[in-house]
Amino acid sequence: MANRKLLIINGPNLNLLSVREPGIYGNQSLEEINNAISVYAKGMDINCSFFQSNCEGEIVSALHSVRTDYDGCILNAGAYTHYSYAIYDAIKAIEKPVIEVHLSNVNAREEFRKTSVIAPACVGSISGFGKNSYFLAVNVMKEILK
Amino acid sequence: MANRKLLIINGPNLNLLSVREPGIYGNQSLEEINNAISVYAKGMDINCSFFQSNCEGEIVSALHSVRTDYDGCILNAGAYTHYSYAIYDAIKAIEKPVIEVHLSNVNAREEFRKTSVIAPACVGSISGFGKNSYFLAVNVMKEILK
Amino acid sequence: MANRKLLIINGPNLNLLSVREPGIYGNQSLEEINNAISVYAKGMDINCSFFQSNCEGEIVSALHSVRTDYDGCILNAGAYTHYSYAIYDAIKAIEKPVIEVHLSNVNAREEFRKTSVIAPACVGSISGFGKNSYFLAVNVMKEILK
Amino acid sequence: MANRKLLIINGPNLNLLSVREPGIYGNQSLEEINNAISVYAKGMDINCSFFQSNCEGEIVSALHSVRTDYDGCILNAGAYTHYSYAIYDAIKAIEKPVIEVHLSNVNAREEFRKTSVIAPACVGSISGFGKNSYFLAVNVMKEILK
Amino acid sequence: MANRKLLIINGPNLNLLSVREPGIYGNQSLEEINNAISVYAKGMDINCSFFQSNCEGEIVSALHSVRTDYDGCILNAGAYTHYSYAIYDAIKAIEKPVIEVHLSNVNAREEFRKTSVIAPACVGSISGFGKNSYFLAVNVMKEILK
Amino acid sequence: MANRKLLIINGPNLNLLSVREPGIYGNQSLEEINNAISVYAKGMDINCSFFQSNCEGEIVSALHSVRTDYDGCILNAGAYTHYSYAIYDAIKAIEKPVIEVHLSNVNAREEFRKTSVIAPACVGSISGFGKNSYFLAVNVMKEILK
Amino acid sequence: MANRKLLIINGPNLNLLSVREPGIYGNQSLEEINNAISVYAKGMDINCSFFQSNCEGEIVSALHSVRTDYDGCILNAGAYTHYSYAIYDAIKAIEKPVIEVHLSNVNAREEFRKTSVIAPACVGSISGFGKNSYFLAVNVMKEILK
Amino acid sequence: MANRKLLIINGPNLNLLSVREPGIYGNQSLEEINNAISVYAKGMDINCSFFQSNCEGEIVSALHSVRTDYDGCILNAGAYTHYSYAIYDAIKAIEKPVIEVHLSNVNAREEFRKTSVIAPACVGSISGFGKNSYFLAVNVMKEILK
Amino acid sequence: MANRKLLIINGPNLNLLSVREPGIYGNQSLEEINNAISVYAKGMDINCSFFQSNCEGEIVSALHSVRTDYDGCILNAGAYTHYSYAIYDAIKAIEKPVIEVHLSNVNAREEFRKTSVIAPACVGSISGFGKNSYFLAVNVMKEILK
Amino acid sequence: MANRKLLIINGPNLNLLSVREPGIYGNQSLEEINNAISVYAKGMDINCSFFQSNCEGEIVSALHSVRTDYDGCILNAGAYTHYSYAIYDAIKAIEKPVIEVHLSNVNAREEFRKTSVIAPACVGSISGFGKNSYFLAVNVMKEILK
Amino acid sequence: MANRKLLIINGPNLNLLSVREPGIYGNQSLEEINNAISVYAKGMDINCSFFQSNCEGEIVSALHSVRTDYDGCILNAGAYTHYSYAIYDAIKAIEKPVIEVHLSNVNAREEFRKTSVIAPACVGSISGFGKNSYFLAVNVMKEILK
Amino acid sequence: MANRKLLIINGPNLNLLSVREPGIYGNQSLEEINNAISVYAKGMDINCSFFQSNCEGEIVSALHSVRTDYDGCILNAGAYTHYSYAIYDAIKAIEKPVIEVHLSNVNAREEFRKTSVIAPACVGSISGFGKNSYFLAVNVMKEILK
Repeated sequence: MANRKLLIINGPNLNLLSVREPGIYGNQSLEEINNAISVYAKGMDINCSFFQSNCEGEIVSALHSVRTDYDGCILNAGAYTHYSYAIYDAIKAIEKPVIEVHLSNVNAREEFRKTSVIAPACVGSISGFGKNSYFLAVNVMKEILK
Repeated sequence: MANRKLLIINGPNLNLLSVREPGIYGNQSLEEINNAISVYAKGMDINCSFFQSNCEGEIVSALHSVRTDYDGCILNAGAYTHYSYAIYDAIKAIEKPVIEVHLSNVNAREEFRKTSVIAPACVGSISGFGKNSYFLAVNVMKEILK
Repeated sequence: MANRKLLIINGPNLNLLSVREPGIYGNQSLEEINNAISVYAKGMDINCSFFQSNCEGEIVSALHSVRTDYDGCILNAGAYTHYSYAIYDAIKAIEKPVIEVHLSNVNAREEFRKTSVIAPACVGSISGFGKNSYFLAVNVMKEILK
Repeated sequence: MANRKLLIINGPNLNLLSVREPGIYGNQSLEEINNAISVYAKGMDINCSFFQSNCEGEIVSALHSVRTDYDGCILNAGAYTHYSYAIYDAIKAIEKPVIEVHLSNVNAREEFRKTSVIAPACVGSISGFGKNSYFLAVNVMKEILK
Repeated sequence: MANRKLLIINGPNLNLLSVREPGIYGNQSLEEINNAISVYAKGMDINCSFFQSNCEGEIVSALHSVRTDYDGCILNAGAYTHYSYAIYDAIKAIEKPVIEVHLSNVNAREEFRKTSVIAPACVGSISGFGKNSYFLAVNVMKEILK
Repeated sequence: MANRKLLIINGPNLNLLSVREPGIYGNQSLEEINNAISVYAKGMDINCSFFQSNCEGEIVSALHSVRTDYDGCILNAGAYTHYSYAIYDAIKAIEKPVIEVHLSNVNAREEFRKTSVIAPACVGSISGFGKNSYFLAVNVMKEILK
Repeated sequence: MANRKLLIINGPNLNLLSVREPGIYGNQSLEEINNAISVYAKGMDINCSFFQSNCEGEIVSALHSVRTDYDGCILNAGAYTHYSYAIYDAIKAIEKPVIEVHLSNVNAREEFRKTSVIAPACVGSISGFGKNSYFLAVNVMKEILK
Repeated sequence: MANRKLLIINGPNLNLLSVREPGIYGNQSLEEINNAISVYAKGMDINCSFFQSNCEGEIVSALHSVRTDYDGCILNAGAYTHYSYAIYDAIKAIEKPVIEVHLSNVNAREEFRKTSVIAPACVGSISGFGKNSYFLAVNVMKEILK
Repeated sequence: MANRKLLIINGPNLNLLSVREPGIYGNQSLEEINNAISVYAKGMDINCSFFQSNCEGEIVSALHSVRTDYDGCILNAGAYTHYSYAIYDAIKAIEKPVIEVHLSNVNAREEFRKTSVIAPACVGSISGFGKNSYFLAVNVMKEILK
Repeated sequence: MANRKLLIINGPNLNLLSVREPGIYGNQSLEEINNAISVYAKGMDINCSFFQSNCEGEIVSALHSVRTDYDGCILNAGAYTHYSYAIYDAIKAIEKPVIEVHLSNVNAREEFRKTSVIAPACVGSISGFGKNSYFLAVNVMKEILK
Repeated sequence: MANRKLLIINGPNLNLLSVREPGIYGNQSLEEINNAISVYAKGMDINCSFFQSNCEGEIVSALHSVRTDYDGCILNAGAYTHYSYAIYDAIKAIEKPVIEVHLSNVNAREEFRKTSVIAPACVGSISGFGKNSYFLAVNVMKEILK
Repeated sequence: MANRKLLIINGPNLNLLSVREPGIYGNQSLEEINNAISVYAKGMDINCSFFQSNCEGEIVSALHSVRTDYDGCILNAGAYTHYSYAIYDAIKAIEKPVIEVHLSNVNAREEFRKTSVIAPACVGSISGFGKNSYFLAVNVMKEILK
């Protein structure tokens, strides 16, 4: 099996990691986390690319690129998780596995975070383990792509 | 009556037409459909321009351009149909007729697709006829613009 | 292709057209509109029959007649649109295409008009274009019946 | 002022008066009540006609007749009160005053009886006074028609 | 039968009649209406007393006085109609008939006015006939008190 | 005990049995089912009459006839099951046992079919057993009428 | 066809039959009813076993035993009917027909009894006929198992 | 105290001020209002920068810039006010005061405008005073920043 | 322009300011705040009167006094904000501008505080700025009264 | 420990005790109950004062007096229990323990009585034991005040 | 009067008392509390038995034992309070008084704890007083059993 | 660091794995999965114990055992996930990390499966990856327990 290619997409406000409410989101920056993911995935013969945007439409477009250029996608859609049917439609439209991840345990926070409108279009969801949520997703994506 | 100018706006994921769930959305690409619309409208002395974006804000801006540069607009807002009050406000703000179209019969699909927050700002709605939804919209726009 | 036969069904209160709130429904009578539809459809080798009733049960029965005697149906179910599951069942039960039409843009009026319980059983919906809603429906029915 | 003409419409199950749950609806038959109303109205120079139907569509049609043949209408729509938007539309469509009446105090019974979808289209409502509800309606209609 | 005594209670803002939105509430003052009611009731051997308060608690107390000092009560609870369970309890607690009246057709106005929490405790309701709502209530109270 | 008389009422769209979605409703016609019921009931000294209508009002009237002419009623109200308070009132008004039946397991289908507004007025309900639902109802009616 | 084996499961509080609200549930004990069912089923070459538990988990386990040891199941889940998705899952998991029964007409009682979360997993439902509900279920199970 | 720096962010459709429904939004352009704010703030030793975008994601990014480059922010999020949890998250993420402003009294308009999902993350809200809403916000920001 | 007269109305529990949850409401007493407002307003040629009551009805009456004796009103209705339709009606009934103010950011507290039933009747709202909310209201009232 | 002072507050309609629905509320007058409480509390070295009002605002004020003049409060807020956020705020504002009591089991009555908006601000609740509810409250208040 | 016998039932997780969130539930173990209750009740000639289970079905069975072996029951159903209609049914089924108790003030905690589905079947409820809730229940049970 | 001990709890119907809807749940038995987990965990110096029960109460008790005998817990609560507040309370009560796992992507199935009442008490959630969901949980638990 040749190398696998994953796109790791992070949505709105995740560029502020290490700055934004560290009690909830941890104190590593997104770049640091991405680097760690990259190394971790390399060890499994998986190449990761990274994309972050605060813009719903750009996340939709990034998901479209997964259809042609990647084997799968790990998506932390941030607050768009809770209302972006456009992202839901994008996940449905591409025929590649997408895993939903969250740093925090979204079910234990504000009421609105208990609804994920994108989850039904994903393969599965992982939430609550900080940066480990991404590592687990890479880990299981390897199995899915076998 | 001089030639009429219409802007045909397509929203998120519609750039994937022919690729995305062809059972629901048909197997012609957006470009092919746009060309067909263009020819069809020409026959009625209507010039069509085309705009597609996955970004809510760009659709809002495109609608603003209708206020000054077009006689009317045909809008398939994709998933934004169901929650974008920004687009609703944009349609209200311009004083040109906007027709809501959908390729599929949105009422026969997921629950969330049964609500259109933009419909109250439009002249009317046409859904369920594939690319013919656009042709009908061009057709009736001609009457509206008389 | 031999001539096509359509049944145009109008529901409750539509017999009062030209009399009832002309600001919303226009000032042509149902008979005048029906005549215009008839002529328009003739030009496409489609024969239209017309049926109006204020009674839900009679509309159900008229839909049943479509199963055996017509190629398709254009249905303005009036207020029954919003609560008649009996009509929904009837549309499901016959195996002919039914198009939902409305004179006014129902989404821009009272809250209760935003729900169509019959739409999920129809091929598609057209609303907001006055009598043109019917013309568009005839037009697209020709394509559907090809 | 010439004689006034009223149509008194009674909806589903009201033909069973005196038989149906007399504890709630009293023990006079509809005919007896109608006769009493007729005499009472005569004394005010008002001629009453009476119509009863179990069929929503026939009540709609009866309301249409008010538009051309009567000065006003007193309507006990029975259970249709709670869901018939077709009757609501009919009241809106005719340009004559309609008064909603009920024999029982509908607000003190089952939950579903607390909503009247026709009330917003009527001049006013009277409920809870048995046959006196009709007498009061005749009484106040005289004032309205002045 | 000796003379009957009624208490006519008017709730919040009704002291502003003739001043407050005359398009909805008419242009007679509360005093003028009360005088007219008084004369009208006299003609039926009914003595009316009048009470107006903007205070929910005082209306509750006035209703208590009905238990001992009056034969019945006509109550326009104004906005308290829609949320005062204290008034509901007061009506239940006294064992005298109370009739709910409203000047305007409350069902045809804001959504919140469609719910009357006091209606289930009353004998019946009359709304939409301006000051005639009170006259009808006096009229039918005479029958109830027979 | 003399012979018992039952009225078997079938509501909207049930006249299409054998034609309408046979996967759900079976492939026997209503006439065939009625004949089978008739024979089955005869064996228990029960005479069955049959009535079918697509019209809510006619079903109400048929229920009224049960009050005077039959010992009980088996009612498949079709889609009216889910919103006809007029039928609910009719069942309450006659003082004869009514059993609700459905061919399909209504709880396993669309959301709206999970609510029966008529069930609270019936003796009991049987659903999901195809034509056997009627046979069971006849069977148990014999016990009820003892 | 060899003898059929059914498991009759009764849920919480049904062990109190004859003691618990006899006006609603009748005055025969569960044992007496079970004996009668046993005899009745014998006459149809059906062997019935009986299980009662107040514990949701034990009912789930009993349903599991149906998968391997019985041809079908008649289930009165008592109050668990209204919220036990564990029982719903159990019925789905075994591939044997399960019929839902209730002694009383659950739709005519408290609001919460109008929802059955297990019904969508069952073949059909029978409610309101006292112990006859079980007899009818045995009767129709015979047909289903043919 | 050194000069303070504020970012004034205007969301979707506010670029159309003076054009869009002047009855609601006034007839000054956004540029004119911004100029007036600029002058007003200068008088208080506050420097204002201005940003307008129709794009939710760009507003999120602009808010991020407040964290490092400004002392506070005045935000009219337009329609995004009612559903953008991404903007809510952005306000939470930066540790600078944000004041919500609206030109119109949003509570007196469409139902959907009564919910502000961003308000819980702001210091406070000012709505209904046209361009004065901004002036008041500048005024009170001076106090907050003391 | 002659001096302007304002009535500042404070509702239930605001008499406890400085005592009640100082973390939320600040530690100045109502009298201290009122004095500061008085001085501030004087500087703009505005005379302020002050009224505080825990009683809904007295607040209604105070609002009535605004109609005849003041040019406008600043209203902190406390908890009545969230359910007093009587106060809503009072604001509607007087034809003077009323501004809603709150000390705390009501949207960031308990769920019930997110609904203001009085806001639709006011000119605008200011919340979250402690006593500055009042100062801003005085400030903008000067503009409104010009 | 010196004597403790309690204020016993009774809300709307409780002055009618012994008169109002004795089946629910018992047949002792409020005065009799208060006397019994007084004696009972004396035996525990607790002095009770008593306050009854039908007015929400006066109950708020009475609660304020608890802050300075009493050690705790026993509150039967009557119907205000279900909607008075003003009383909720008052309880929060004073820093003394308040116990909610009810004579009847409010959960077993009308739907609206199942919600207590004041309970979250109280120490605890006791309902359903007639006058004993008060005695228990005195009893436990003694423990709380230790 | 002979000695009375009570069963004190504690539901899920109450076996963890003194361990589980002592800030909410106190730091005495269930055994210690039970012992204290036992002594307290003895002093009133009441014998208490104790039962704890995490299993809904066993609590139902324990309630059944109250029917035959006890004079009454004090029930802290823990989390089952909020959804166990099986327990509700069990309380209804036995004809002995049951008092609902809670250690904490359930109304002041998570939203789901505000609904008690068992309360309507109980005599009354006591919550918020720690172990004193049980003592009060014993105390008032003595009165009830007189 | 010494060996870690985990309890893997599986709830209702999971004993049927490989039998129950293999399309959704896979075709390995629970025993096979448990063995694989055991081996996998061993490799990380983690000892796993396994518990399965269909009974809510036994799952509560098993969770209690985690408090004293294990370092953490992996919980697939099956259908109890969606309504068992007793399990939620148990997780809160023990002070050990609990991870919620599901074999299937619960968000993509029936509506009721979209709500997890236990998630807010867990560290995090993993769903949709078949048996890999458990492996990931073991994997991340190792990190959590460091």
